[in-house]
Amino acid sequence: MRLLFIGFGTVGQGLSELLLEKRDELAASYGFDAVVVGISDMLKGSAYDPDGLDLAAALARVGRGESLSDWPSVGRSWDAPTMIAEAEADVMLEATYTDISTGQPATDHIRAALERGMHVTTTNKGPLALHSRELIESARKGGLQFLYEGTVMAGTPLLNLIRETLAGAAIHEMRGILNGTTNYILTQMEGGMDYAAALAQAQQLGYAEAVPDADVLGWDALAKVTILANVVFGAGLKPSDSPCQGITEISSADIVRAAADGQRYKLIGRVWRDGAGVHASVAPQRLPSTHPLAGVGGATNAMTITTDALGEVTIIGPGAGRRQTGFALLNDLLTMWRHS
Amino acid sequence: MRLLFIGFGTVGQGLSELLLEKRDELAASYGFDAVVVGISDMLKGSAYDPDGLDLAAALARVGRGESLSDWPSVGRSWDAPTMIAEAEADVMLEATYTDISTGQPATDHIRAALERGMHVTTTNKGPLALHSRELIESARKGGLQFLYEGTVMAGTPLLNLIRETLAGAAIHEMRGILNGTTNYILTQMEGGMDYAAALAQAQQLGYAEAVPDADVLGWDALAKVTILANVVFGAGLKPSDSPCQGITEISSADIVRAAADGQRYKLIGRVWRDGAGVHASVAPQRLPSTHPLAGVGGATNAMTITTDALGEVTIIGPGAGRRQTGFALLNDLLTMWRHS
Repeated sequence: MRLLFIGFGTVGQGLSELLLEKRDELAASYGFDAVVVGISDMLKGSAYDPDGLDLAAALARVGRGESLSDWPSVGRSWDAPTMIAEAEADVMLEATYTDISTGQPATDHIRAALERGMHVTTTNKGPLALHSRELIESARKGGLQFLYEGTVMAGTPLLNLIRETLAGAAIHEMRGILNGTTNYILTQMEGGMDYAAALAQAQQLGYAEAVPDADVLGWDALAKVTILANVVFGAGLKPSDSPCQGITEISSADIVRAAADGQRYKLIGRVWRDGAGVHASVAPQRLPSTHPLAGVGGATNAMTITTDALGEVTIIGPGAGRRQTGFALLNDLLTMWRHS
Repeated sequence: MRLLFIGFGTVGQGLSELLLEKRDELAASYGFDAVVVGISDMLKGSAYDPDGLDLAAALARVGRGESLSDWPSVGRSWDAPTMIAEAEADVMLEATYTDISTGQPATDHIRAALERGMHVTTTNKGPLALHSRELIESARKGGLQFLYEGTVMAGTPLLNLIRETLAGAAIHEMRGILNGTTNYILTQMEGGMDYAAALAQAQQLGYAEAVPDADVLGWDALAKVTILANVVFGAGLKPSDSPCQGITEISSADIVRAAADGQRYKLIGRVWRDGAGVHASVAPQRLPSTHPLAGVGGATNAMTITTDALGEVTIIGPGAGRRQTGFALLNDLLTMWRHS
């Protein structure tokens, strides 16, 4: 299986580390055999070798801050569109930065790869939140696999759980904690910290960006509930179709008052289906501390899925991280390998 | 897909209801098309029709307490071994009663079906706890699917989660609440009830048997950790190889004392792997009330899986029930349908 990395930041590097560490194990368990033929990254340069690049050497080079374009290779001057147009590969891995308002450039990368007959896996929320119908249909027409486990809850296998292991169960509602940064901040505030201090700590730990709006205003969670509405319920929602409220209006005093009533604040993303259609929302909620989602602390994510046959099933796991998100791509690759 | 039911108690009937209710939906979503050709049950009689039985009529008949053997059909006098030997079917569903000390008669049913070239799905813990290596190897040699999602946590997709969606992650340990009856009793005791009253209530609700030993002495949980050790870690453990302690020694006073320390008693099944091999155990443990498993109340089950790539992933869901266990068989059938 010839792999093409478009974007080689923490996620792409996390996957590369897993591929190197697990090479023998994956070969033994699944007969899995993959080679990275091309990498193109706006900042880290690009390289292409139809016989396969030395992935360990590529990681070392990037680790030292050296450009991949300084490597003698065919594609050293290729930007992402050129790489996708020229490289011979079976799977394109899209792991560039998320732009939730335009979905670009990731959406064009995926379109081009599918048109060239490549399977695609991505961790990028933009294309799925904005163009999932078009992209899923395009993959279907081409007989190609298009997987995106890492767009929601990182490598915690929520989407695969729904597709593979809840097959046959009708889902009515999904409700959960989809943003680790805000859950970390709320958990710290319960410990007595005020919002500004908790945010500063989240930034120091690398959970929150310098401009934390996407997390604290709820946009990241909104992108994820939109993806769930579109890929699980087949809706055609855009993020702007749904109400979204973040955590910036919640004070330490609110949290203390809730605790006195045996309740905890959580930023809840919700997707549900009723007679009128498919709906999504993001808003802080006070949950009784006996509720399964109330016990989920720190940067962890969780999702409760309400089904006809099973009632409620909840999955709890990491929602971010280099290896945790890289693993989502690995799991998608193994799904392609085993079931295509 | 021609189905053969061996055992037609609550689980077989629960699956039948789902097959009837979801016929159109499963055909539309997966092209799934199944017909029940044979049913054999020690108490409810047996029937066989190579062109397919009327499943709704069979359910109605059993609901009225009428024997299937009074139906005009080819196999009205066939016991389970004869049915397996004579029927032409693609999949045998083993859902007879669990005998955890011998694994019989279910193990012989599965052996015979695999020898005749049928795929097999079962909810029966006995064969998996005692003979998993032999049966898995026999299915592998015959190029047949052998699935058993319902043996642990009913239809909550723990085993499929591990096989399909955690593929590529190395699992170090699994730890969880695998018996709903004891978890219900412990939860009631936290509310002030004593053990005898909580057990009586569990019996009244149908959670506990008249002879509750298999639940309260930990044997049911022991069978399940043994299955996990064998099918996830490839061990060859028997239930008798592992230490097992139930909940009968825990008093209301113990529970009150634990609560005063911010702790809750849970009956924890654990499976882990270290340099010396694969180990399993069942024992009550005091967990801090902030622990994800501590918040799991009532008859619900939960399992925390510790992996290399993701850290901890927890799944919480029903551990028993007519439709919930029937769904496990349905999910196994869909896995066979989609991936074979």
